[in-house]
Amino acid sequence: MATASATGNSDLEIAARAVMRPIQEIAATAGIPAEALELYGRHKAKIDPDRLPAEPGTSPGRIVLVTAMSPTPAGEGKSTVTVGLGDALAASGQRTIIALREPSLGPVFGLKGGATGGGRAQVLPMEDINLHFTGDFHAITSANNLLAALIDNHLQQGNDLGIDPRRITFKRVLDMNDRALREIVIGLGGTSGGIPRQDGFDITVASEVMAVFCLARDQADLKERLGAITVGHTRDGRPVTAGDLGAAGAMALLLRDAFKPNLVQTIDGTPALVHGGPFANIAHGCNSVVATQAARRLADIVVTEAGFGADLGAEKFIDIKARLANCQPSAVVVVATVRALKMHGGVPKEGLGVRDDDALRAGLANLERHVGNVRRLGIEPVVALNRFATDSGAELDLVAQWCRERGVAVAVADVWARGGAGGAELAARVLEALERGQEAHPLYPLELNVAEKIETIVRTVYGGAGVDYSVPALRRLAEIQAEGLDGLPVCMAKTQYSFSDNASRLGAPEGFTLHVRDLVPKTGAGFIVVLTGAVMTMPGLPKEPAALRMDVDGGGRAVGLF
Amino acid sequence: MATASATGNSDLEIAARAVMRPIQEIAATAGIPAEALELYGRHKAKIDPDRLPAEPGTSPGRIVLVTAMSPTPAGEGKSTVTVGLGDALAASGQRTIIALREPSLGPVFGLKGGATGGGRAQVLPMEDINLHFTGDFHAITSANNLLAALIDNHLQQGNDLGIDPRRITFKRVLDMNDRALREIVIGLGGTSGGIPRQDGFDITVASEVMAVFCLARDQADLKERLGAITVGHTRDGRPVTAGDLGAAGAMALLLRDAFKPNLVQTIDGTPALVHGGPFANIAHGCNSVVATQAARRLADIVVTEAGFGADLGAEKFIDIKARLANCQPSAVVVVATVRALKMHGGVPKEGLGVRDDDALRAGLANLERHVGNVRRLGIEPVVALNRFATDSGAELDLVAQWCRERGVAVAVADVWARGGAGGAELAARVLEALERGQEAHPLYPLELNVAEKIETIVRTVYGGAGVDYSVPALRRLAEIQAEGLDGLPVCMAKTQYSFSDNASRLGAPEGFTLHVRDLVPKTGAGFIVVLTGAVMTMPGLPKEPAALRMDVDGGGRAVGLF
Repeated sequence: MATASATGNSDLEIAARAVMRPIQEIAATAGIPAEALELYGRHKAKIDPDRLPAEPGTSPGRIVLVTAMSPTPAGEGKSTVTVGLGDALAASGQRTIIALREPSLGPVFGLKGGATGGGRAQVLPMEDINLHFTGDFHAITSANNLLAALIDNHLQQGNDLGIDPRRITFKRVLDMNDRALREIVIGLGGTSGGIPRQDGFDITVASEVMAVFCLARDQADLKERLGAITVGHTRDGRPVTAGDLGAAGAMALLLRDAFKPNLVQTIDGTPALVHGGPFANIAHGCNSVVATQAARRLADIVVTEAGFGADLGAEKFIDIKARLANCQPSAVVVVATVRALKMHGGVPKEGLGVRDDDALRAGLANLERHVGNVRRLGIEPVVALNRFATDSGAELDLVAQWCRERGVAVAVADVWARGGAGGAELAARVLEALERGQEAHPLYPLELNVAEKIETIVRTVYGGAGVDYSVPALRRLAEIQAEGLDGLPVCMAKTQYSFSDNASRLGAPEGFTLHVRDLVPKTGAGFIVVLTGAVMTMPGLPKEPAALRMDVDGGGRAVGLF
Repeated sequence: MATASATGNSDLEIAARAVMRPIQEIAATAGIPAEALELYGRHKAKIDPDRLPAEPGTSPGRIVLVTAMSPTPAGEGKSTVTVGLGDALAASGQRTIIALREPSLGPVFGLKGGATGGGRAQVLPMEDINLHFTGDFHAITSANNLLAALIDNHLQQGNDLGIDPRRITFKRVLDMNDRALREIVIGLGGTSGGIPRQDGFDITVASEVMAVFCLARDQADLKERLGAITVGHTRDGRPVTAGDLGAAGAMALLLRDAFKPNLVQTIDGTPALVHGGPFANIAHGCNSVVATQAARRLADIVVTEAGFGADLGAEKFIDIKARLANCQPSAVVVVATVRALKMHGGVPKEGLGVRDDDALRAGLANLERHVGNVRRLGIEPVVALNRFATDSGAELDLVAQWCRERGVAVAVADVWARGGAGGAELAARVLEALERGQEAHPLYPLELNVAEKIETIVRTVYGGAGVDYSVPALRRLAEIQAEGLDGLPVCMAKTQYSFSDNASRLGAPEGFTLHVRDLVPKTGAGFIVVLTGAVMTMPGLPKEPAALRMDVDGGGRAVGLF
């Protein structure tokens, strides 16, 4: 997440001053042969995994997963730490590649304004990556909406498959925060305007096509998973898939080029693969399997990020992606900030610049639970204290001391201001952690049924007392069992701000009940989405959207990305 | 339009066999300096108009406009002739650049399957151009939908501008044929889901953002026009613009890179700028002004295309684009085929392979009216008879003889089978036409009011008897006058299949009344869209969409584009 500096330099201005090397040079550094490279301008390229050199004789690169305490509006800078750590590891002589998600235009135009790290720890070209980049999200949006159009066209043209218009679960998407499309009625206007039905749009990053794109092993697997997407049910209760509609081939064609990972560079010149980008609150929250595996073939260490707090991104990384792709982390970094800890300790956003040791101590309960969760997943975590200009040395010392008392490795990261040089201590802690030879393991076995899996996550990772299901959710649980889908992992959709489903319960709430309002089987992605509380799969724009500050100046330069 | 060959070679197969030169070589041929080039892979590039060499001492390149008789489902091959003519002119030693529209995914997945010419007369890489290309349409879709989201967010956040939710005319878009989105209700689901209102989606190529993109002179003009888009009216009747909402800067930022023209090549290696792509039935129907003007700075002859028949694309090219950008055609080619003439003469599609001189003669009435219209616009046209494998020599002779009797220049184009070599005769006729030194002029003066402009087009170009307005259209006419918009040109939205608003009235119908059901002022684009008959700004998919035949084969090659 981007952060503001005391010097008045915005991330956009720092990025604009950075001197980028031609992407061919970065590729050469990473051992990517020229024939695997497809240029998109001077500083972006797609790489063809089929043209990478065969895996080295040694084992594939090890995964360092960067996650965080529960996020706050103050911003924890998880992407910033991921980039800075990658730069620091590269500077220390380790063959390192960073693997990140692509930003969504939704948050770019909503609140965040950008999602490519911050300060001296950014991936470049930040303007391109934050806008259309190489068009991957547009391709995903198109593939998704082609399937949706084919569904409604099937209804219109006679409905040979007997699809029940009231039971279509597949939605259209836009890469946009647009709450007015959340609940809509389509197909109005008479016989030429389709079949009227209740419907809605999701944001692209919450879509099953995005999840499939990020979990598929290769192009063949991609097409197979697309065909396996359930779009709804027939009037007599049978599931209907994208394959039944004949849509998988055209969808795969739309995704063919997008499916190749994107190569860019950090300000320090470290190679980064930026590819795919499901949100971690309403989707599984990490970059594509093809990018991660390509990075592991090229580097000894792959620094990657899972979205939001460790209760969301890291749990799903380990239980969904890593279980599927056999890429469990060998080290886990939990990003924390003095500001976020104070907020979890009760300080409002406006007061975060003021020292408050009591609030800081109280907020550590949040970090403590995340640390415990990472240990439960088989890894001794490293806490990265991401330094902000307003932090006092005493506050940083307090947190570091707290960590040491609990035997938790800790390092202050000063990567926003100093890039990789500010991450040397963190890199040293991470290398020590890698020497332990640990590997994460899933939280739950797939043999548990869906309700048991949810219960396990809620009682252990979230620290809740139990689960309450709505009537539709209970019905869906029964359908899941009847359709033989109980063996799939679950993808929790929950607010990122709290361990509970109530965004205002900060810190480390206990004794709460998690409310499941619906479950949506994603048979292409291979998981069951569990919708909890009021979490939305189509966000809205805030009162003052970031978009209103954006512009192109007379010289053609971007204004208002940060 | 793509066409099938007697040899069984599809356009996709011919394109796949063609050997492309690196796009840097094509750029060098066209006089484009390396610093103006941004590569998108090996065979596509964007060019920065600001980095092109200053205009040569001689006058800018002359425009050869390729248009057609009224199209039929048989396919006239207008893009094919445009490409083949460009190749033939280049082969004859003329400095030539082809300027074309980008295809929309709507028709690609609907009926057409592709829109990059056909046979030996194609622009390459056809797979890329027909799918996402360089992402321009996605950028346009995003910019459009960002504005839409900002409108509904403005309503949700208190509606400071006092926008009347019932009078919002700006619609969301998708680059997709999706009839179920034509008439919808949005904003349902309670207080968090926006303000409920009636709405609808258009296809991207019908959007005002597309029109603005294609008519803007430069980046500054683009931003100004975006800000001038009218999105609706307040409760007290004042128009509200994108600029009032603060949206223009972010929209311009989303369009910044897309706004640079795309350079590709034909199979023969002729440079082609492919940029922008409004439909000609529901929008103004020609490629971007920036691409046309860049081509004129680089070449002596620019061969460009206006969509559908001369009643639509050519009229709008001359009355809207060329009037604005001062780029009136110096020659006009009217594409005709024996098959289409027979269809206009009453033969059904299945019978077009059989010789039928009577039907052919009857169908010539359609061509005759188009020829007369082009003469009315100040140009002696050249008729290009696009040869199909099933055409007999006698049929081609009959049409050629008919032309000669009327003093109309004519040539058979055999470019599908032979590329530029099959267009030599046509190129010779076009060069003769250029020697006349003619320049087209608008049909109507801007001083006429909107109703008078419509009347002029209907009575002269269409050959109709008069115009009938719906009650809402009459109200809108009064508003247009009240808001001082009567001086804008009109952009007729009409079926492409007939001179009338009834798609089944082929040939050269007379005495009909054109039905205007609504008018939509596009204050950013600078024209008034006139919706006639049942023409739709969001198409539907057919019973058997082309998408269902598409696929990616095991080698990663596209299947089913044609």
